[in-house]
Amino acid sequence: MFLTELIKLSEAKRILNENQIILDGEIIDLKDSYLRVLKDDIYSKHDSPPFDKSAMDGYAVIAEDTFTSSPNNIKVLKIIDRIGAGNYSEKTIEKGEAIKVATGSPVPKGGNAVLMEEYTISNGENLEIHGAVTPSENIAPQGEDIKVGEKILEKNTILRSQEMGLIASGGYGKAEVYKKPLVKLIVTGNELVEPGSTLKKAEVINSNKFTITGMLKSLGLDVEIDHSHDEIQELKEKILNSTDEYDVIITTGGTAISKGDIVIDVIEDVGEVLFHGVAIRPGKPFGFGVVNKTPVFMLSGYPVAAMGQFDTLVREYLLKMQNITFNPKKHKRISNVKIPSSLGRTDFVRAYSTDESVEHALNKGSGIIKSMVEANSYLIIDENKEGIEKGETVEIIYFELLNLNK
Amino acid sequence: MFLTELIKLSEAKRILNENQIILDGEIIDLKDSYLRVLKDDIYSKHDSPPFDKSAMDGYAVIAEDTFTSSPNNIKVLKIIDRIGAGNYSEKTIEKGEAIKVATGSPVPKGGNAVLMEEYTISNGENLEIHGAVTPSENIAPQGEDIKVGEKILEKNTILRSQEMGLIASGGYGKAEVYKKPLVKLIVTGNELVEPGSTLKKAEVINSNKFTITGMLKSLGLDVEIDHSHDEIQELKEKILNSTDEYDVIITTGGTAISKGDIVIDVIEDVGEVLFHGVAIRPGKPFGFGVVNKTPVFMLSGYPVAAMGQFDTLVREYLLKMQNITFNPKKHKRISNVKIPSSLGRTDFVRAYSTDESVEHALNKGSGIIKSMVEANSYLIIDENKEGIEKGETVEIIYFELLNLNK
Repeated sequence: MFLTELIKLSEAKRILNENQIILDGEIIDLKDSYLRVLKDDIYSKHDSPPFDKSAMDGYAVIAEDTFTSSPNNIKVLKIIDRIGAGNYSEKTIEKGEAIKVATGSPVPKGGNAVLMEEYTISNGENLEIHGAVTPSENIAPQGEDIKVGEKILEKNTILRSQEMGLIASGGYGKAEVYKKPLVKLIVTGNELVEPGSTLKKAEVINSNKFTITGMLKSLGLDVEIDHSHDEIQELKEKILNSTDEYDVIITTGGTAISKGDIVIDVIEDVGEVLFHGVAIRPGKPFGFGVVNKTPVFMLSGYPVAAMGQFDTLVREYLLKMQNITFNPKKHKRISNVKIPSSLGRTDFVRAYSTDESVEHALNKGSGIIKSMVEANSYLIIDENKEGIEKGETVEIIYFELLNLNK
Repeated sequence: MFLTELIKLSEAKRILNENQIILDGEIIDLKDSYLRVLKDDIYSKHDSPPFDKSAMDGYAVIAEDTFTSSPNNIKVLKIIDRIGAGNYSEKTIEKGEAIKVATGSPVPKGGNAVLMEEYTISNGENLEIHGAVTPSENIAPQGEDIKVGEKILEKNTILRSQEMGLIASGGYGKAEVYKKPLVKLIVTGNELVEPGSTLKKAEVINSNKFTITGMLKSLGLDVEIDHSHDEIQELKEKILNSTDEYDVIITTGGTAISKGDIVIDVIEDVGEVLFHGVAIRPGKPFGFGVVNKTPVFMLSGYPVAAMGQFDTLVREYLLKMQNITFNPKKHKRISNVKIPSSLGRTDFVRAYSTDESVEHALNKGSGIIKSMVEANSYLIIDENKEGIEKGETVEIIYFELLNLNK
């Protein structure tokens, strides 16, 4: 298959969206749920606080016993028990009695207020009180913050540490979340070798394996990596053997039109290529297909093109598999440089942005990964624009905002 | 030990800094290096490109053979070989000859330029050429982007996907990075139980275990969790048994002054408490100590206080153990609310920030974790300020910028 006609990025996204798979749920231990996505609403099994709770260190009392007390009118109560946080008292406070409590203690039966410690002097069983409290003063009533049965989290929430704590407080030690996609990466190319000290003839180090592993990690995903030579039968088998076990296949290399560029042809043969060639720069030779219902993202073999394709066309799909909407915040910056572009093509210029302005990451247009290291953002030139002028306000996306990070 | 005198946050940070431990290096597989921190500078073992590389699909030629050719002066060369990316030709181009190459191919010996395919018509072995190229045209020369021996990354770089790729391209399949701290969390409290459907008497669900696990995950760290009752001997043993195996101990609970608040006393007994009580809100009852050279962070038992303490006093230390400087970006926002504060105390108000303004996450001052769920940021009231006015420009930190995320 030849890369003859390029489709616009917007059209490529439409096709991806039409073929979006959203995975099922699975129940996992809550402690493993960081950055996972809730499948259902969560309702609390408990009131919070679960009991009338003292909000102060002091004495649980019957408020009416304190009403007229003051430094000039000291009353004396009888201390019948002392409890710390985590303990409770079996005793019931009767008229004239008090129980020492800590912040967080359950207020013992009979008590209806907590008198702060600083308004008291204790002497054995005797408690001199120098101040008054009104009923319910210094008590956080049961269910004040969360009522049993109350919805505490909405489905599709991405779980941060605080949501994990809230789910625990609601009485759940497990959570139902969307499955994470299992990803198979098949790096293609006869020329590829592992990193090492010597390179023979046309050998090229397989760096895509590492960049794509890193990009998947930035979405919280692991990957199983394989390598295929540019041999139709070998690649065909590797693809077909992966569709059962994995939710997504990503390939690199073999998406151009040169001799040996076989990936598109193989996918067309064993499944369907839905598009090949997108009007983006970098990353034009990108393909998307489906084999045995498994989506296959065909990236370029060029590291920077593959990264750009991943950022532009793959991240959104992978996140949506967990029902996460990918919508990285764009910032406006003044461009320090003029950059030409073609109408109909979307450019993702590797750029270095400050709080005010943006420019190319490198002076020269380099195809290599060093430019991605020097960049911190993409400067986006929309498909409806023919380049940008120096001094123009443009949109950028910081690389770190592409990651799954809440 | 009693929480009598509070030290300022700036003083607490000074003491933490004086007791900062930076861990040793370890050599790991490059594919596992995402968000790890380089221990040393990295120098490339290779030129990049590793050979003179064709930048176009076309024909490697001797430029001089093409000099006068044009659509009106078509010359004919002899095609002696054809190679795709990843392959190379053993042949040497002699005067009057050409070899077909793909983008990325090594330029065969003898050739000094690549003529783009569109200026040619091939017919068997014959290649009609309709254009001229100058020497070195359409060739990316060996070492153009990276020279062998060139420093490609500085020590202390946090590795993203592109740095992983660059290290691979430099010839390394492993990387020396700072060790990640091994963290032991000891949650204390007789009252704590696992999440479940029923709560008896003073029982409280152990939510700190989950929030702190989540916060550690946000720094790329795992944690080993234990639970101790409020028993001096039990806690002492758990602390002492952890100092050999772990780089950091974090405790929750037992840092106030109530009966049963034993953590500070235990650390004082088996090691040294360097400070206890910090003028921050929330999170005043925070302690820091050292036992057998192992730093011990003593957090409050209250989930929101513990989270605030972690964000304020623990993250920076843990990151610095890997030689990462923690400096989350602060944004300026207009406060929609007046918030009182005390001179000398730093407040971290759970807040909801938009692109323009900020307000409390909850109307009421709540001690519970729900407020952290509703918030997306901290509004910071510096220790040198007595509160903020409605309409005042204030500093906020988005929660997600507290995480390790590049």
